[in-house]
Amino acid sequence: MSNLCIAQSGGPTAAINASLAGVMREFIKDDDYDKIYGLKYGITGIFTHEYVELDELFKTDEEIDKLSLTPSMFLGSCRYKLPDITSEATIDIAGKPYTTKQVYELIFDFFIEHDIKSFFYIGGNDSMDTVLKLSKYATKNDLDIRICGIPKTIDNDLPRIDHTPGFGSAAKYIAASLLEISHDTSIYRVPSVTIVEIMGRDAGWLAAASALARNGYSSVPDRIYLPEVPFSVDDFIADVETVLKEKRNVVMAVSEGIRDNAGNYISEGESKHDKFGHVMLSGAGKFLENQVKERLGIKCRSVEVNILQRVAGHLTSKTDILESEKLGATSYYAAKEGQTGVMSVIRRVNPVTSSLDDEYLVEYSTERIEYIANGVRKVPREWINEAGNDVTPEMISYLKPLIQGEVSLSFKDGLPDYQGILKNC
Amino acid sequence: MSNLCIAQSGGPTAAINASLAGVMREFIKDDDYDKIYGLKYGITGIFTHEYVELDELFKTDEEIDKLSLTPSMFLGSCRYKLPDITSEATIDIAGKPYTTKQVYELIFDFFIEHDIKSFFYIGGNDSMDTVLKLSKYATKNDLDIRICGIPKTIDNDLPRIDHTPGFGSAAKYIAASLLEISHDTSIYRVPSVTIVEIMGRDAGWLAAASALARNGYSSVPDRIYLPEVPFSVDDFIADVETVLKEKRNVVMAVSEGIRDNAGNYISEGESKHDKFGHVMLSGAGKFLENQVKERLGIKCRSVEVNILQRVAGHLTSKTDILESEKLGATSYYAAKEGQTGVMSVIRRVNPVTSSLDDEYLVEYSTERIEYIANGVRKVPREWINEAGNDVTPEMISYLKPLIQGEVSLSFKDGLPDYQGILKNC
Repeated sequence: MSNLCIAQSGGPTAAINASLAGVMREFIKDDDYDKIYGLKYGITGIFTHEYVELDELFKTDEEIDKLSLTPSMFLGSCRYKLPDITSEATIDIAGKPYTTKQVYELIFDFFIEHDIKSFFYIGGNDSMDTVLKLSKYATKNDLDIRICGIPKTIDNDLPRIDHTPGFGSAAKYIAASLLEISHDTSIYRVPSVTIVEIMGRDAGWLAAASALARNGYSSVPDRIYLPEVPFSVDDFIADVETVLKEKRNVVMAVSEGIRDNAGNYISEGESKHDKFGHVMLSGAGKFLENQVKERLGIKCRSVEVNILQRVAGHLTSKTDILESEKLGATSYYAAKEGQTGVMSVIRRVNPVTSSLDDEYLVEYSTERIEYIANGVRKVPREWINEAGNDVTPEMISYLKPLIQGEVSLSFKDGLPDYQGILKNC
Repeated sequence: MSNLCIAQSGGPTAAINASLAGVMREFIKDDDYDKIYGLKYGITGIFTHEYVELDELFKTDEEIDKLSLTPSMFLGSCRYKLPDITSEATIDIAGKPYTTKQVYELIFDFFIEHDIKSFFYIGGNDSMDTVLKLSKYATKNDLDIRICGIPKTIDNDLPRIDHTPGFGSAAKYIAASLLEISHDTSIYRVPSVTIVEIMGRDAGWLAAASALARNGYSSVPDRIYLPEVPFSVDDFIADVETVLKEKRNVVMAVSEGIRDNAGNYISEGESKHDKFGHVMLSGAGKFLENQVKERLGIKCRSVEVNILQRVAGHLTSKTDILESEKLGATSYYAAKEGQTGVMSVIRRVNPVTSSLDDEYLVEYSTERIEYIANGVRKVPREWINEAGNDVTPEMISYLKPLIQGEVSLSFKDGLPDYQGILKNC
């Protein structure tokens, strides 16, 4: 029997271990392979001979359940882009120079030596570039080693997929945060403005998810600004003034990536210095906080939804976790059937409409990696309102199913009982 | 039959409605009073005639359960300090000038007019000042209206009480956040420093709670800095270097209130300006992030645990919620017995030791308000290690019981199903 290999790459999410768990469950059930190796720190684990035998670490359903609900990457990660096979660059690995060809040989020597039939890479746009390059190399060199991607990114910006694993949990965390912020900000008589900055440098999906916080008693966030529409500080201030006429405590959601007409991040023009004269960068939220204070003379605070939006394992979407597992399983069977250079995808059966009663049904398949690697899917302009300061009902219909359901997380001593962090072996 | 009156004051917590719910449960069970009025926006609701009949709004156990698990103040809040009865100041209320005496009369006229037997004020140090002043006034003027405080503050800085309602939930949220941050920061090979800034201007209890994140696989936070010990940037940088020798990804927890030897907030010396030349304030975390980058040339990020640390109803401590209800009930019966000018307190039966096996038992009673109003309880120096960069085992023993247990929160459409925000009636 042959073996499998898997690795995780890029930035963390709360669901990336669920995809690893999804592959593990099929590996155990299927009994068609002998071992499953997990590379540490993504593909770079091959360069440093760092890997684990996952089949030895996870044997029972309980162990895999715990892995599935643990945020971030159990195997560690990397931000490493393989050089193009035609590149003449020299690559330094552990102090030794390698040609591009040697780097690819190093990787495939590892696969051959360990009798790897399929390699799975869980990641986003950049990681899919690795899947593309490795699968091309294998095909070109007549190596029957299947290279399959499994999607992952809180940014939800991969092409050819309805939504990405990790996004639903991030969206749920962001919406819950905005709801709780609305409870926090509504208690005083004094008028106030709260600006909530949400992740997303290029695509506004995460900021859009804040709209899900709105309910029968709260209109928070009162406006939403995405990077897909050029941002005007003057218009923003005018919007604040408009909302202040209707209510006392205003909450505005902004994407960290909002840019002006010329494409510059809106806080870029600032020249802040610490006491040693060093330039300090601040975010869009802080910048707008100062603008509101200065121009309107009103109590204003900015809140950065911090890195928990990507790793809040304590508040994940059950839909997201289950779909992430299923995408792992889909890649597992695609590779087994002989597919290579593909990524597993999830597609919505019914089109998204402005009705909130759309039935949410999905199907799983695979897509050629060429269409996905290095691509970016932004929020379509038609899902942003005309004024560019809110999302449309279609966006709400699209987002709503993704945050449904809660997982049953175990607690120990008052805190989530996660699978531990993999230390250096 | 006579009536009751209650209000909430100060900053929000995730457990302040639990204390309101605690009073409501006894009110319904006891059937000794006719009505219970809730003042909106704290004591200032009397000035503006804004109040609700809580007995009409909450009748069933289910309704009160939902209220109990809703963060922030259902009744709204204020940051209003009553003038001293001897003050000669003139107070403006709704555009009309009032003498101090008239303000007190306004309040007690309301109580008399509504046949109020007892008034409960849920709040922190400043709110207990209101309890002190009103109870003194009632006693001096032979008015049999009992004025009782119910404690509340995430800061845990009230004197004469083992710990304050709201603190345990904030501590649990902070510890869970640090645990998840440890998963987030540990995935790359590249060395990194993460500085986590936690609330607490004067007392370091909340920052200390980050220590609870440590478990069998994670040492995060690697060091903890509280405002009770003068902070040295040089020592901090040296600590970062020390930890970097042991591990690749360092996480330091700092209280927002850390100050230098002269008592100045450590980011105070900065002079940052936006593009219009306006001074921008940043926090301790951002300041230290820049120091680390500059001095050590290492990847560094600061994370501000945002306002969710005080209102994260989605991750509260069951111990905290139940104790907060019980403190409401304790004040209810204290007032009924004729006590006035008191606050309900919780005390630990067994002393805190360095053993983690201490049995956690508490008892409830009341304490004279004179000992509590305007007081601040800081972290005792002996619960901070000698070097001033961590907490002791006694602190862990003290904190651990407070975050135990999870509540069963209902979800609706993927988000917590909270009691709505009280709009203007």
